[in-house]
Amino acid sequence: MANRIKVTFQPENRVVEAGPGETLLDVAALAGIYINSLCGGQGVCGKCRLKVLSGEVEFSSRGIGFLDRKEVDEGYVLACQSTLKDRDVEVWIPPESRREEEQILMVDNIVQYGAPSSQEAGAAPVPVPYYEPLCHKVFLKLPEPTLKDNLSDLERIYRALAQKFPDVKWEADFACLRNLARLLRDNHWEVTALVHALDSHCHHVRSLEPGDTTRNAYGVAVDVGTTTIVAQLVDLKSSQVVGVEASHNQQARYGEDVISRMIYACGHGGLDPLKNAVVTTINTLVNSLVAGAGIQHTDIISFVAAGNTTMTHLLLGLEPCTIRLEPYIPTATRIPWARAAEVGLTGHPDALLHCMPCVSSYVGGDITAGVLACGMNDSPQLSALIDIGTNGEIVVGNNEWLVCCSASAGPAFEGGGTKCGMRATKGAVQKVRIRGDRLEIQTIGGGKARGICGSGLIDCMAELVAEGIIDQSGKFVRLDHPRVREVDGVPEFVLAKETESETGEPVVITEDDIGNLMKSKAAVLAAMKVLLESLGLRFSDLDRLYVAGGFGAHLDIEKSIRIGLLPDVPREKVLFIGNSSLGGARQALLSTHAYRKANAIARQMTYFELSVHPGFMDEFVAALFLPHTDQSLFPSVQEALKNRQREEALLK
Amino acid sequence: MANRIKVTFQPENRVVEAGPGETLLDVAALAGIYINSLCGGQGVCGKCRLKVLSGEVEFSSRGIGFLDRKEVDEGYVLACQSTLKDRDVEVWIPPESRREEEQILMVDNIVQYGAPSSQEAGAAPVPVPYYEPLCHKVFLKLPEPTLKDNLSDLERIYRALAQKFPDVKWEADFACLRNLARLLRDNHWEVTALVHALDSHCHHVRSLEPGDTTRNAYGVAVDVGTTTIVAQLVDLKSSQVVGVEASHNQQARYGEDVISRMIYACGHGGLDPLKNAVVTTINTLVNSLVAGAGIQHTDIISFVAAGNTTMTHLLLGLEPCTIRLEPYIPTATRIPWARAAEVGLTGHPDALLHCMPCVSSYVGGDITAGVLACGMNDSPQLSALIDIGTNGEIVVGNNEWLVCCSASAGPAFEGGGTKCGMRATKGAVQKVRIRGDRLEIQTIGGGKARGICGSGLIDCMAELVAEGIIDQSGKFVRLDHPRVREVDGVPEFVLAKETESETGEPVVITEDDIGNLMKSKAAVLAAMKVLLESLGLRFSDLDRLYVAGGFGAHLDIEKSIRIGLLPDVPREKVLFIGNSSLGGARQALLSTHAYRKANAIARQMTYFELSVHPGFMDEFVAALFLPHTDQSLFPSVQEALKNRQREEALLK
Ligand code: FES
Ligand code: FES
Repeated sequence: MANRIKVTFQPENRVVEAGPGETLLDVAALAGIYINSLCGGQGVCGKCRLKVLSGEVEFSSRGIGFLDRKEVDEGYVLACQSTLKDRDVEVWIPPESRREEEQILMVDNIVQYGAPSSQEAGAAPVPVPYYEPLCHKVFLKLPEPTLKDNLSDLERIYRALAQKFPDVKWEADFACLRNLARLLRDNHWEVTALVHALDSHCHHVRSLEPGDTTRNAYGVAVDVGTTTIVAQLVDLKSSQVVGVEASHNQQARYGEDVISRMIYACGHGGLDPLKNAVVTTINTLVNSLVAGAGIQHTDIISFVAAGNTTMTHLLLGLEPCTIRLEPYIPTATRIPWARAAEVGLTGHPDALLHCMPCVSSYVGGDITAGVLACGMNDSPQLSALIDIGTNGEIVVGNNEWLVCCSASAGPAFEGGGTKCGMRATKGAVQKVRIRGDRLEIQTIGGGKARGICGSGLIDCMAELVAEGIIDQSGKFVRLDHPRVREVDGVPEFVLAKETESETGEPVVITEDDIGNLMKSKAAVLAAMKVLLESLGLRFSDLDRLYVAGGFGAHLDIEKSIRIGLLPDVPREKVLFIGNSSLGGARQALLSTHAYRKANAIARQMTYFELSVHPGFMDEFVAALFLPHTDQSLFPSVQEALKNRQREEALLK
Repeated sequence: MANRIKVTFQPENRVVEAGPGETLLDVAALAGIYINSLCGGQGVCGKCRLKVLSGEVEFSSRGIGFLDRKEVDEGYVLACQSTLKDRDVEVWIPPESRREEEQILMVDNIVQYGAPSSQEAGAAPVPVPYYEPLCHKVFLKLPEPTLKDNLSDLERIYRALAQKFPDVKWEADFACLRNLARLLRDNHWEVTALVHALDSHCHHVRSLEPGDTTRNAYGVAVDVGTTTIVAQLVDLKSSQVVGVEASHNQQARYGEDVISRMIYACGHGGLDPLKNAVVTTINTLVNSLVAGAGIQHTDIISFVAAGNTTMTHLLLGLEPCTIRLEPYIPTATRIPWARAAEVGLTGHPDALLHCMPCVSSYVGGDITAGVLACGMNDSPQLSALIDIGTNGEIVVGNNEWLVCCSASAGPAFEGGGTKCGMRATKGAVQKVRIRGDRLEIQTIGGGKARGICGSGLIDCMAELVAEGIIDQSGKFVRLDHPRVREVDGVPEFVLAKETESETGEPVVITEDDIGNLMKSKAAVLAAMKVLLESLGLRFSDLDRLYVAGGFGAHLDIEKSIRIGLLPDVPREKVLFIGNSSLGGARQALLSTHAYRKANAIARQMTYFELSVHPGFMDEFVAALFLPHTDQSLFPSVQEALKNRQREEALLK
């Protein structure tokens, strides 16, 4: 290989190799890291600022006007105007240079599947090739037939495929035959097969196109959330993420929550508006992804969607009515593949849609995707997965069994149900630090505050109780704090005053907000405790705790434990994996094996019905305390609290 | 089982079991034997006459007026007015009670696959269930879901299917999900699955319909001949043939032979007219079958078509152009299944079309069907199959290898290229007997002669040479015979004079006709001889000789050998299997295993190119003699001839 340069991106600590002369903007895109580049890399928007931490790049004079003296001295450059020289470089991407969408989203710390070449190294314990996208493209350069080599056109294609993929049984759609004779002869016997890997042993040619189009093979992984829909564009050739977009689910106009949408769909409104709304939302995201990556819609040959059971049904145009009524039966849990065009998604005319399998009416494809993403089903260790959203979904198990339950957490963690709550998007307070009278807040995007997102609320609550501004029952006790005030008799903490906020309205957290948040976190913890106890287990038996959710880039694990949202387990056992629904969908996109594993997970997982469990309500009530009524469950939190109180007593 | 009565139908010697009270007409239909029943069994047309040979039936007085005294004494009854009593019966069906179509057709002596129940008896050596139609219906009575048994609708269907078919992996088309929730709940959880058996281990549900429709599951096997198209309606539940129809291929208007149709399709005419013509022909036959059986089009869930490579391409709307030009490449040989509706065939909207696999441009699905039908690929014995039509196709081999070749035989055997030639339909002379001045002819349908069909020509030629009316080179030598006359200097033999024929025109066989027939039979025998010799084999090495062709019900094996169309092998080794293309298609219709076997046959068979073989022309010339220039090749014919001459010398 020619002179390869290592480029390390911070804070992700992601390393990619590149060649001299490539721009940092391009190298970042290659690494799946998105840098704001409004002008498309022309050096005229100044949005793509990076800081060079070590090494050296060639920085063209073109962008210099966007940086001041001090910034230049600190090592800031514009990514699009900086080309690699011949030395390794380490750069840091400041928050303001992130694309806005990236911030709200949906980072997932899921292991990436390497492209085939990168797999060859280590000894794979998996019996089937791991990297084998559900749909991919194979270029075929066929030998021209002769009197001696007179296989039919289709058999010639099968033979070429079998040479590339021995041990695979090849089939073709009937439609492949139409005009095949001309296609081959008009294109010098060079065609690209769109291949659907039904499983590792049987692949299906869905269509054929002229020449070599294997460079244009993209897939879209979609997290079909009730509130937010996130779509990731994946280059199926390199297995790299090349774009991500998110937006509100347009279904919201027919009801905020799943239940009201089901009522709409099964009432006069009908199914169509809901189906169309989610399809339109996804198509809009796809449009942005296509424009952002500079590709064509027809380059997208594969979609994988992960959503809860109702969202999956609505996307597919299946009536969700029986999901809602006893005995709560979905039309399907493991979903047959569909043609994306048939469902209404815009991509290649022969693109396919696979849905992540659901377990039951209550446990959807988002959860099987989550299990797949964290890999708990592959490990003998006892793991738990908590996916925190409107529903707190919890899975406990290992490679032999999986049990899951679902607790209604309310909308607080997704920015609903609180006075200034908002989604984890630009302007949302995501980090809060209170030290005495001093307050520091950090917003997504770094600008003025517009509201508070889920992780901000958790941070804030943890700080308020640590500082003794609220007590362990969530009541305000330091009404004298300069940031505390009362409005209509309800105390509230002011994170940003009218003058400090983006909107001119104050950004606050009220005692009622804290009450709602308390219920949300109590529901999650109680659910987990009851589920574990029903299995004869305790928090301390867990070897691993995976936390997932659309909290933006970060969830502060320490603070989540301090408020009692997460159990008090050794911190090294806890791993925040971000949007695991999206991560699992992407895994399936890139690996038929993973998709089949998800189907096995769905069959294997048993559902534990929390609502009928007699102990749940008691546990819920006991958890309505910060961190918990039973202090012995949170020994490390108790310890820290005592230390703090000791410290304060000393200071006084 | 209740009191079962055996009914034997002659001349087929087919035995069926039935119960007291059933009419002979119904029982015959059950046996796949078609009896003319113009009035539909009302007893008012008198067409359904049968003769009771032994046993006794209850004959209602209703039909008595159609029979005269003598007939009643001889045991004639009307089938529709005769009900079984409690004794076994043997009946004979006179030719005039056959449906007209049945006479021209296409009898095939192929072993019938029994319905599942009849399989259970003997120890099957086949590792997979033999009776397992490519498409069939399965009725499912699902348990209503409860809180405890809360599988999704689709999983509930999978579970019920798995209970009926363990060891099968079940999948469903995405389209099955649409309205599935309503379908199940509106129909008391009773539905019928239309199942596509991809192979013995993987079945696909193509669609679901309300209630139990398993009674209405029919398939159509089609022999897509260049000249004649034959379609058979098969009850997939009982595996019985319940109807057969045939007609000219409407493509004939675009050219009589395959080559001229290819030229039309690839020239200005285009593919569409040819595709539409064959589809229309089949649909017309299907209409008759549907009307005849009193079923609905939507009861037809499966089509299997067998045709030569060009006919297969035209049916599927694939350009045949590359088949015709060097290096003679078809678009496909093994054909992916298609939706019948997509191809234009009328049946159930989800009916499928499977085509019998082709080997090459020259060896089509009709031949793989033939091999499948006679089963030569399953036997260690050395077998040959000769399919006599416009092309004489010959396959030689056993369970380890198969080699085939194709010789252009010309249209004589199909009724073309001779002065009074006609298809094997009503009025065709099919049997000829000449003894001195005496002439006996037998026509199909028993009426006056209209022309001569292939088997009639063979019969006639054999009689003429045996009687010494023509010599062994095919020249007329007995110009003094009362039935011989000369027209424009060409001698001809008169089978029916103007006054004896149906048309008022004489039915004759001319010296030129005999010359054409000679070329046809010479091509077939020479091809077979060259093929065998290229394999180091001789006629005497054959353990079995299967003869197939659309000759109507009978081909006289003895006479075929006497003229040298078939080699002079021990008669017990020769089996006439009729329309083996149709028979093989029906086997596939009834057995996924058989269809897969056909695909294996197509892959396994090698093609021997006769036209480039230097010895072929010499062999062809040597075979232009009755039976052959090399008399030692036909010892039994020589022997018979000598005996005959001795006898005659004695008589003189
Ligand atoms: S992308 Fe516009 S300045 Fe770099
Ligand atoms: S069918 Fe008409 S009389 Fe028997």
